[in-house]
Amino acid sequence: MNCNTPTDIVFSFTGFALRGGSTGQHQDGWGIAFFEGAGVRHLVDHQAAIHSPLAELIKKHPIKSENVVAHIRKATQGRIALENCHPFVRECWGKNWVFAHNGDVPDFKPDLTGQYLPIGNTDSERAFCFILQEFRHRFGTQVPTLAALAQALKELCHHIAGYGTFNMMLSNGEALFVHCSTELHYLIRQHPFNTAHLSDEDISVDFAAVTTPEDRVAVIATEPLTNNETWTAFSKGDLKVFVEGTCLIDLPG
Amino acid sequence: MNCNTPTDIVFSFTGFALRGGSTGQHQDGWGIAFFEGAGVRHLVDHQAAIHSPLAELIKKHPIKSENVVAHIRKATQGRIALENCHPFVRECWGKNWVFAHNGDVPDFKPDLTGQYLPIGNTDSERAFCFILQEFRHRFGTQVPTLAALAQALKELCHHIAGYGTFNMMLSNGEALFVHCSTELHYLIRQHPFNTAHLSDEDISVDFAAVTTPEDRVAVIATEPLTNNETWTAFSKGDLKVFVEGTCLIDLPG
Repeated sequence: MNCNTPTDIVFSFTGFALRGGSTGQHQDGWGIAFFEGAGVRHLVDHQAAIHSPLAELIKKHPIKSENVVAHIRKATQGRIALENCHPFVRECWGKNWVFAHNGDVPDFKPDLTGQYLPIGNTDSERAFCFILQEFRHRFGTQVPTLAALAQALKELCHHIAGYGTFNMMLSNGEALFVHCSTELHYLIRQHPFNTAHLSDEDISVDFAAVTTPEDRVAVIATEPLTNNETWTAFSKGDLKVFVEGTCLIDLPG
Repeated sequence: MNCNTPTDIVFSFTGFALRGGSTGQHQDGWGIAFFEGAGVRHLVDHQAAIHSPLAELIKKHPIKSENVVAHIRKATQGRIALENCHPFVRECWGKNWVFAHNGDVPDFKPDLTGQYLPIGNTDSERAFCFILQEFRHRFGTQVPTLAALAQALKELCHHIAGYGTFNMMLSNGEALFVHCSTELHYLIRQHPFNTAHLSDEDISVDFAAVTTPEDRVAVIATEPLTNNETWTAFSKGDLKVFVEGTCLIDLPG
């Protein structure tokens, strides 16, 4: 989720979390990272999201954030363990970077020089370390423009996707970078707001009642989370950058 | 806390959290990091610990860990914000490193080359980045022995403490490194276990009932957390390294 005003994610998270062991089979852990200013609340659990007390807490005490990355895991590479739960967080250029991956790239074994090394043993964390290493390698200590960063990331994602499936989200708390390798959908909610109804449970929210006309929220997910709104499918190879609830940069595959 | 078996910290945390706004004045945020294998559960909040739903969750759902670092903050440098809450977490040599600082070193402004940069604006995070940068500078990609690391850390801590007060804890999930600049106390709980009584609230635990004879737990805190056990004061300048609930390396100031 990427927004122009701090927004709580309880509605989307409720549907999403059900896919972590109830309506979906991604039950080998889950995680969520909320940016709050430069800080990140990073909650991960190797229990299924539907059984996790932390997931309950998120629903009971809504956290408002402009950038949220959440993930439910089906272990394909790496054992079920806390260090293998997405999203992963690392610092680059004095910012938190949050990364989540859907898919697998088991044979992607890049030469990691040591600047960023995986803590767990997933192919996903390896790919994340590679991306940040390459950012540093290409741009040094000079923070690049958003356009330059998006272009570099697209090249890196295409390279990694050559090894398998690499749908990914990456955020530095300002922009949300999304790459589609096989499947992703997005939705922009903005004025006039309507009632949305979850696909995974019979729950609706009338967003008109809880928003102001200026609010704008982009929600990106593998599969649409609601069944009465129009979600847009990504094309394979697309890299899109969302800022303040809108798709600011669109690099087709 | 550093232990030889995964141990829950509910008892100590209960007394400790009260100092975050009730029996103590450290009410500008708090945080705790639990190692679970190579992974870390990192919970931070800029609310006072006594008002925090996350702190309640920790008491309700005990998390067992062999290494825990917790901190309650009284803002001296840096505003009250999530990114300024200790403990801080960074990756070095493919491990999570967790750092917390008590005191202040406002004029410590080291030359940070970019490998580790602060995300917030505390002197503490600056010092942490400096320590990891120096680890990499001294040891490169070669992970040093515990003894070499302790010696290097002692030198770095003494250097930083020259700028003010630098009581600190640092853990990589295996060892807990503790440096005393002004005040710190520790306690080793081991067989035969007794009943301990908190200093900050009328709560006791009979550790004999919840442990096995092999268990060993080191608890380190600024001020003793219990009032019927014998805590040992650190001397100024001491760097001690705790492993599996015992003080394995002791480098006097």
